[in-house]
Amino acid sequence: MSGDEGKEQPNIFYTKGAPLLQAETLLNEGKVKSLYRMADEPEKVYIHFHDKVTAGNGRRVDFPEGKGKTCCLISALLFEMLEKRGIRTHYIDCPSLDTLLCKKLEIIPVEVIVRNIAAGSIVKQTTITEGVVFNPPIVEYFLKDDEKDDPLLTSDRVRLMGIDPEPMKEAALEINNHFQILFTLLGIDIVDFKLEFGYDVHGNLCLGDELSPDNMRLWKKGTKERFDKDLFRKDEGDIVKAYKYILKEMRKFI
Amino acid sequence: MSGDEGKEQPNIFYTKGAPLLQAETLLNEGKVKSLYRMADEPEKVYIHFHDKVTAGNGRRVDFPEGKGKTCCLISALLFEMLEKRGIRTHYIDCPSLDTLLCKKLEIIPVEVIVRNIAAGSIVKQTTITEGVVFNPPIVEYFLKDDEKDDPLLTSDRVRLMGIDPEPMKEAALEINNHFQILFTLLGIDIVDFKLEFGYDVHGNLCLGDELSPDNMRLWKKGTKERFDKDLFRKDEGDIVKAYKYILKEMRKFI
Repeated sequence: MSGDEGKEQPNIFYTKGAPLLQAETLLNEGKVKSLYRMADEPEKVYIHFHDKVTAGNGRRVDFPEGKGKTCCLISALLFEMLEKRGIRTHYIDCPSLDTLLCKKLEIIPVEVIVRNIAAGSIVKQTTITEGVVFNPPIVEYFLKDDEKDDPLLTSDRVRLMGIDPEPMKEAALEINNHFQILFTLLGIDIVDFKLEFGYDVHGNLCLGDELSPDNMRLWKKGTKERFDKDLFRKDEGDIVKAYKYILKEMRKFI
Repeated sequence: MSGDEGKEQPNIFYTKGAPLLQAETLLNEGKVKSLYRMADEPEKVYIHFHDKVTAGNGRRVDFPEGKGKTCCLISALLFEMLEKRGIRTHYIDCPSLDTLLCKKLEIIPVEVIVRNIAAGSIVKQTTITEGVVFNPPIVEYFLKDDEKDDPLLTSDRVRLMGIDPEPMKEAALEINNHFQILFTLLGIDIVDFKLEFGYDVHGNLCLGDELSPDNMRLWKKGTKERFDKDLFRKDEGDIVKAYKYILKEMRKFI
């Protein structure tokens, strides 16, 4: 299935009430995305983005129309940009407006956060003030475990879990360079963002998951005006409108 | 006041119901210790150890008789040993059985944990199994802030708070070497322990706080039989009996 064909038809993988196609297998039902596999494509996954947003580790939920497609399309644009810049990602195609076709990865159970400006948990759990600029940026690790509320990990803890953090850190900082260039063009400060990595069937480290304002903090340049999920977390505005603005601006440059 | 005079009389700094001596100022009332200052000794503090134990950041409390003196005397022995080994500490003297006389420090708001074996929060917040031996040992940092429940800090977070973790790490590992030698003689595995550091009036980094089984995990060599505060945390036995055993054994070697 090519990207163009997919874009002409509605998403076929998750239609409310409609039965799943026989050949599909639901691999994983995440908080706002579902992963499917086709019987004849065992090394690929379809990531379907729902019109859903959660906060507080799923304790707050809403279903804003258009969110799934917006996050999917922003992700597709950013993955395409990174691939062009030589970053290895799981992205293959965007077969419909709310679905990505990706390489199946063995996901590393560590969330990687790049921070350019202090916000969120680093402010709550230290004496560092919100808005402080990190120069150089810092990379942090969190255990991917909702039951434990995704606790912070030191590099030592990551290593003692049998995971080498260095290749992820190196890739994360390179991705950050590309993001900083793009978002500067958009008049946006990319405050921080979350990445997930995994290994493809050939053992290559690849960037996985999604790349959307659900996993980023985006502030209008030099201000704290938000264009990210904090709008929902703090009940401060319409996230779909903000995400669509980001998508529209991004399309001018990618 | 010399150590000998102090040991001959009951503690004069905190007698239930008795008024404080006029010259004393209560500087800080901790969870199990109180800090006093004498008017004519502004650069010194008296640390009084109460017969009190708390767990869960003060949510559980008990008042076991003899605990204050046992923790105080273990601390005195360990500080004396470390001073003899060239480690700079706040310890001056042990003027009574439950009171230490120490240099006044400007305390660094970071708790330093040395881990030789996996136990406690590192097991709860990672995939590392209890009992795994860390070779080399690791040093971790936690924010000293009860209201925030003492969150874990990365080295980056410590540095961004304006604190250089390296001199504390170096001292902590040196202290660990001395502790490992001593506790091996006692037939005890020193699983982990907490240290606090501060600066004296001359700007020297000094080891502060107390050094007792309240701030350590001590397991009978090769087993998980506890001689530390986990006995109280897990309601598994008499902490004063266990602490007194440690004190008695320690006296054979220090």
